[in-house]
Amino acid sequence: MKLSAVLDRIDATLPEATARLLDLLRIPSISTDPAFRGDCARAADWLVRDLQSLGFQAASRPTPGHPMVVAQGGSGGRHLLFYGHYDVQPVDPLELWHRDPFDPVIEDTAKGKVIRGRGSADDKGQLMTFLEACRAWKAVHGTLPGRLTIFLEGEEESGSPSLVPFMRDHAAELKADLALICDTGLYEDRVPAITTMLRGLVGEEVTIHAANKDLHSGGYGGAAMNPIRVLARILAGLHDDAGRVTLPGFYDDVDELPEAVRAQWQALAFDHARFLGEVGLSVPAGEQDRTPLEMLWSRPTCEFNGISGGYAGAGFKTVLPAEARAKVSFRLVSRQNPDKIREAFRDYVTACLPADCAAEFAAHGNSPASVMEIGDPAFESARAALTEEWGIPAAYIGCGGSIPIAGYFKTILNMDAMLIGFGKDDDQIHSPNEKYDLDCFRKGIRSWARILDRIA
Amino acid sequence: MKLSAVLDRIDATLPEATARLLDLLRIPSISTDPAFRGDCARAADWLVRDLQSLGFQAASRPTPGHPMVVAQGGSGGRHLLFYGHYDVQPVDPLELWHRDPFDPVIEDTAKGKVIRGRGSADDKGQLMTFLEACRAWKAVHGTLPGRLTIFLEGEEESGSPSLVPFMRDHAAELKADLALICDTGLYEDRVPAITTMLRGLVGEEVTIHAANKDLHSGGYGGAAMNPIRVLARILAGLHDDAGRVTLPGFYDDVDELPEAVRAQWQALAFDHARFLGEVGLSVPAGEQDRTPLEMLWSRPTCEFNGISGGYAGAGFKTVLPAEARAKVSFRLVSRQNPDKIREAFRDYVTACLPADCAAEFAAHGNSPASVMEIGDPAFESARAALTEEWGIPAAYIGCGGSIPIAGYFKTILNMDAMLIGFGKDDDQIHSPNEKYDLDCFRKGIRSWARILDRIA
Repeated sequence: MKLSAVLDRIDATLPEATARLLDLLRIPSISTDPAFRGDCARAADWLVRDLQSLGFQAASRPTPGHPMVVAQGGSGGRHLLFYGHYDVQPVDPLELWHRDPFDPVIEDTAKGKVIRGRGSADDKGQLMTFLEACRAWKAVHGTLPGRLTIFLEGEEESGSPSLVPFMRDHAAELKADLALICDTGLYEDRVPAITTMLRGLVGEEVTIHAANKDLHSGGYGGAAMNPIRVLARILAGLHDDAGRVTLPGFYDDVDELPEAVRAQWQALAFDHARFLGEVGLSVPAGEQDRTPLEMLWSRPTCEFNGISGGYAGAGFKTVLPAEARAKVSFRLVSRQNPDKIREAFRDYVTACLPADCAAEFAAHGNSPASVMEIGDPAFESARAALTEEWGIPAAYIGCGGSIPIAGYFKTILNMDAMLIGFGKDDDQIHSPNEKYDLDCFRKGIRSWARILDRIA
Repeated sequence: MKLSAVLDRIDATLPEATARLLDLLRIPSISTDPAFRGDCARAADWLVRDLQSLGFQAASRPTPGHPMVVAQGGSGGRHLLFYGHYDVQPVDPLELWHRDPFDPVIEDTAKGKVIRGRGSADDKGQLMTFLEACRAWKAVHGTLPGRLTIFLEGEEESGSPSLVPFMRDHAAELKADLALICDTGLYEDRVPAITTMLRGLVGEEVTIHAANKDLHSGGYGGAAMNPIRVLARILAGLHDDAGRVTLPGFYDDVDELPEAVRAQWQALAFDHARFLGEVGLSVPAGEQDRTPLEMLWSRPTCEFNGISGGYAGAGFKTVLPAEARAKVSFRLVSRQNPDKIREAFRDYVTACLPADCAAEFAAHGNSPASVMEIGDPAFESARAALTEEWGIPAAYIGCGGSIPIAGYFKTILNMDAMLIGFGKDDDQIHSPNEKYDLDCFRKGIRSWARILDRIA
């Protein structure tokens, strides 16, 4: 049983693995701040050296921004690409940290040991679970667990400006059979999960113009069209009383959930009362004939992310504004086409306009949903491996947000991605006092060993 | 014909009257800026001296802010109070002025001679029309034209903080039979007018609270209630398709226009196409079964003066905000009770709230409409006098805005007010390059002489 030898080795060498992670966490690789440019390069170099020590052909590859780390190694039938990112979020407000964000430490807490420091969960700790699994495997087997490409980005926290060009320019080098992405979390902090559905996004900004200047509501009120009134009617008309989006054709390309997935989601027994309760809410607000998990993962939405017009300061001003503005976004699922949805929205707004009003539109964001082909046997194998490690049946889950890299693997490299991660909701990613549970780190490493044993 | 002697005297001494006005305009009595406190006192003192020279018992009366000028003089049956204000608006942006705002001058323009300078129209030029009428009268008759109280404020442009307390404390001294207010304009720049209806105002700020913090629309979109969506539905429900306000009981205390007034307004042949066209609009947006003048003067409104919530900056942020806010105002007419309207609004909002949402309210402004009792024969006399002077039938008009002083004369001193003024729309009050037509100044003085001849 070579696998059990690998798992034993992981447990036996956990202190060394942890020490390596702390070493990486000490490098303040904040990608968005030019002051840390040298540190980003240092983190990339650190990873290149570590990958080389595992037998990979690894290099730090320049981009107009921070370098990409690309490594090739091992051999075997199925070629796997692993993606993670070595850059981290800024640390302000620094005064809310209980210790130096870049002086990481293992801390005892009421909930167990945690690795405290910026990047511990997002994403250095997670990406190291994969590298440590490879290391233990190599120690036991003398080889890497299969044919592997490692692809580590240094700009994920600052909008990934170099990612798509780099993938396009190096498509042949990066193309593999399946991508593995470790940047997500456990379901409800305990259930190992593979994210197979990611929603897409259409962002629109609409400005309603009426009079050619701000007017006084005493002089004009009653006779002049008020653009806030027009905008309110437009937004109010986008949902019906049952919470459905009213745009014509909006649901045309929305698939019903496959029965197997639906059954699995039901088995998750999602505690929506707890989920909403934590933010002060109680009643799911979406389509009233859908379950809360469907609302979050498999159903499209229309949300209002910002609205402005007229006087918003303290006190009061009797102004009739010349314009009013809203930022509207649609989360997309299944085969919904972002361009088609945007067009339907613009058509609807235009049709709503009364005399004397004009609408101006600006596009922000345009990505389709990602739905992974779980027909690939690798998914079921990974699920079995996760179930074994965590002692809880692993789940296929959705994600209400968008993880663009998964879509790029599909559209640029034509490969599916398996998103597996071990983060918890209380990891405080992007916030002060970020942590990663030591147990998640250990089980994460062991999970990858089990998965690679089955699929590589 | 003593009146014609007075009118002749006004014309003969117009250069001197203009010189006096320029003298007063040179005092930069900007009430809102503490740096000009001494200048406000100087302007008050200037007026006291001028009133004394006319035979008034006059004094500058201290307040916690700028002084009030109060003068008593003359004798006769009907006791009239004249109100004006000697303070002016700030002058910034100074670079848009073509000359020093406080170095006034008579300018030749394509439309005739104008008095150029801050305060020329609002309100020093207008208040001097009354004083100059008294001066000419005195020169011809040897006495003032009747029993007169002059009441000049120095804080009108900065919210009149001392006005109500001063009126309350000196009610016996200020009480007269009828107030005359010279701070309004001609109808459509040419028709002499008496403003007899002023709308009231209720201002409300409503904040809709949903989640206890801002949420990410990826993580929560679809399941969490969005307060902008709630607010949009609330605002959209406040008007029906015909432009009527939907609050229960909203129109209960709204009187139909007396037939005589309606006929007069029709005779005004209001050019709403021009009125709206100047601000880029064309279609009256209020109650569709009302004329544009009714929409502006005699019908109540519900307007949205400001709206805010979520992210309003450049770009996009996929936030579900915790709250959204609107500033809503109602212009009131007839006997509409501000407290009742406010309560109806709050009840309506509260009834609209879905689960998990709360509404928070803040009151801003609370004044009923003012409707003058034009049954008083002084109104018809003044109208006849104006008609004679201007050669155009004078009109009773409404005013869409609120002039609080008119309401205070009614509620505190129980006297009606006759609002007569000679401003034009292009006077640029509150803006750079303020002016007052020299012809308006002259005809204004002559108008008061004719009015006083008939009613004092």
